[in-house]
Amino acid sequence: MNTASFNPTSLFAERMSGVPTSFIREILKTTVQPDIISFAGGLPNPAFFPVEAFQAAADTVFSKSGRNALQYATTEGYLPLREYIAARYKATQGLDIKPEEILITSGSQQGIDLVGKVLVNPGDTIALEKPGYLGAIQSFSVYQPNFQGVTLTNEGVDVDELEALYDKQAVKLFSAIPNFQNPTGISYTEETRLRVAEALMGRNTLVIEDDPYGDLRFFGARAKSLRAYFGDQCILFGSFSKIAAPGFRLGWVVAAKPIMEKLIIAKQATDLHTNFVGQRIMHEYLVNNDLDAHIQRIVAAYRSQCEAMTSAISRYFPAEAVATKPEGGMFVWITMPENFSTVKFFDEAIKQKVAFVPGVPFYVDGGGKNTMRLNYSCSNAEAIEEGIKRLGALMREMLPQAAVVG
Amino acid sequence: MNTASFNPTSLFAERMSGVPTSFIREILKTTVQPDIISFAGGLPNPAFFPVEAFQAAADTVFSKSGRNALQYATTEGYLPLREYIAARYKATQGLDIKPEEILITSGSQQGIDLVGKVLVNPGDTIALEKPGYLGAIQSFSVYQPNFQGVTLTNEGVDVDELEALYDKQAVKLFSAIPNFQNPTGISYTEETRLRVAEALMGRNTLVIEDDPYGDLRFFGARAKSLRAYFGDQCILFGSFSKIAAPGFRLGWVVAAKPIMEKLIIAKQATDLHTNFVGQRIMHEYLVNNDLDAHIQRIVAAYRSQCEAMTSAISRYFPAEAVATKPEGGMFVWITMPENFSTVKFFDEAIKQKVAFVPGVPFYVDGGGKNTMRLNYSCSNAEAIEEGIKRLGALMREMLPQAAVVG
Repeated sequence: MNTASFNPTSLFAERMSGVPTSFIREILKTTVQPDIISFAGGLPNPAFFPVEAFQAAADTVFSKSGRNALQYATTEGYLPLREYIAARYKATQGLDIKPEEILITSGSQQGIDLVGKVLVNPGDTIALEKPGYLGAIQSFSVYQPNFQGVTLTNEGVDVDELEALYDKQAVKLFSAIPNFQNPTGISYTEETRLRVAEALMGRNTLVIEDDPYGDLRFFGARAKSLRAYFGDQCILFGSFSKIAAPGFRLGWVVAAKPIMEKLIIAKQATDLHTNFVGQRIMHEYLVNNDLDAHIQRIVAAYRSQCEAMTSAISRYFPAEAVATKPEGGMFVWITMPENFSTVKFFDEAIKQKVAFVPGVPFYVDGGGKNTMRLNYSCSNAEAIEEGIKRLGALMREMLPQAAVVG
Repeated sequence: MNTASFNPTSLFAERMSGVPTSFIREILKTTVQPDIISFAGGLPNPAFFPVEAFQAAADTVFSKSGRNALQYATTEGYLPLREYIAARYKATQGLDIKPEEILITSGSQQGIDLVGKVLVNPGDTIALEKPGYLGAIQSFSVYQPNFQGVTLTNEGVDVDELEALYDKQAVKLFSAIPNFQNPTGISYTEETRLRVAEALMGRNTLVIEDDPYGDLRFFGARAKSLRAYFGDQCILFGSFSKIAAPGFRLGWVVAAKPIMEKLIIAKQATDLHTNFVGQRIMHEYLVNNDLDAHIQRIVAAYRSQCEAMTSAISRYFPAEAVATKPEGGMFVWITMPENFSTVKFFDEAIKQKVAFVPGVPFYVDGGGKNTMRLNYSCSNAEAIEEGIKRLGALMREMLPQAAVVG
């Protein structure tokens, strides 16, 4: 006879014990006051959401196919939307991807979760960029992997370190954001991509290429996708969140047939299918508007905001603060001397009404205490100038102190 | 040095090996021809989707708060929508549920997945109605539980059997659909609910009350929710799919604080938040329309379709076919003599252009070979009359044969 009395916390599954609560979520709560200059977020700038075009698209969908759009739909996603995505890969990157290799997901975050569900046994090794994307760390954590951080250099992942890891042990996944990475803004050079391919191709591993920012390139030509090197050995994630709007939660996963079959079963077990009304509205929007022209407007704004930030950094930050030089995307990454705590710096910066994200949560091994992420996509040039000026003054104040208490 | 060559199927996680591919999904593929009379689906009738009202709601949302609706949002869900749901629980069932006890999910299917993620360790026992909801079987399977089916009688779950199971072993969850269950259409009597509460209250277990159909009652008063008996020991799922429209994928989970905290972390790791545009449109629809009046239109139609089906069954089916008597919802359940295979019957019925779902996938223990599910929500009276007539004739043909080959 079992007579243990009700104690909900005793009932939790072990897999949840290692999942980090989102540090960023907590930070964002402290930065909602209107007088805070916040470089903490990671949101696309809502000024560029094509509200009227979506409104017209919604009106058309409800008028022309409301009953269909409101009904249950297939797990794979709306076929014309998957066809659009496939055609766009061909047009913009020359990639041959079939619509049946595309699964529409509830944001690319869900793609990460589904890949974890389908592939990761407890204890499996996942190689992750260091620093790495917090959403991937959170999602994969649920599946109890052994995370191995691989240093991110200014040219992309450190391929020697990556290869040494693979030579030492079985690695199930290598998860990368090769374009304008979150949190660093770093992009892999062509040479790094080629070297990653040479190092991992044919090994019994999958390469996760998460590419939410690839279209947001400020200058130069788009670098070759890892998928172009790896083919079916690569699982590619895409998203409408940064190029159209995140509120629909519409992303996708590209995967070869055997993996796609498992992903579809997992997706069905998870939530049957991605919200269909949103898929229909997004598709209607895409076929009636010039997405590339829209993206160019976003790019022009983010480029100018990024320039404002890097220019202000070069003028106001002390030489000890080393910044990345993003060629696109939404973030700049700052590395301070080793004894400088960006968590302590955050506490002081908030008093000066400026917010950012300290780097620690982006590290799976407890490192990064002297790093921080700055977002520029949601701030105008004046706020950037003023916020960076305040941070720079505070750095100069705290740097000698850090050397002492370090 | 690790030199295993690329073999994707060798990379799959163990948890996926026990997940059933959806049998229903396969069946539905064979039933899309327009000349098939299909009782196989489980879809709400699209004739009752309030298309124009949703169109107006979408127009308002994009006009008044487009930029906000299109941005990232909180993991918990849109607060006014959660407030609406809480107020409706109070108004329709007298339940005291706080908005912060409600998490908006991508359909209630995602609620099941999140509960599995947060609570179920491999090998944990889940008690499930037998026959049980296929979506729950699929979702929970991923977390490698030990399913224990508990017989569903015409009065609801067999409480003696349930209690005996709990006395024998630790049971983490008891998962139930007390109102108009899928697949059987059976509802728990008040006495069964009270007895379930007496048997399980205070034990170290959680009761999952999945209630997508509770509002679709054809006659009589709503029975008391299990949540009303169990309080915080009950996790309650709800959904807009059957009372408004499923295409938004909007459902919710009601859970007490310690469990809700874990569910929110799991939700964030899974897909950040439920599609926000859909939440905003649904809320705008709800505050501008009389949901109860709308539900009464659906109920009137389903009641008449259910009556058409039960009446046709009593006229055309042989006495050996025993049907449930639904007081609401969307399904009738048929039990044939033990030696009658509804899978073989399905193959013959399809030749007669009538489809249904054989009962086997609803059983976690391989039983139910002589059972089947009939859906009436998407068929008019004429199709029901004709389809049941054909099935009845075929039953009479196959019954003596079943006795021989059985």
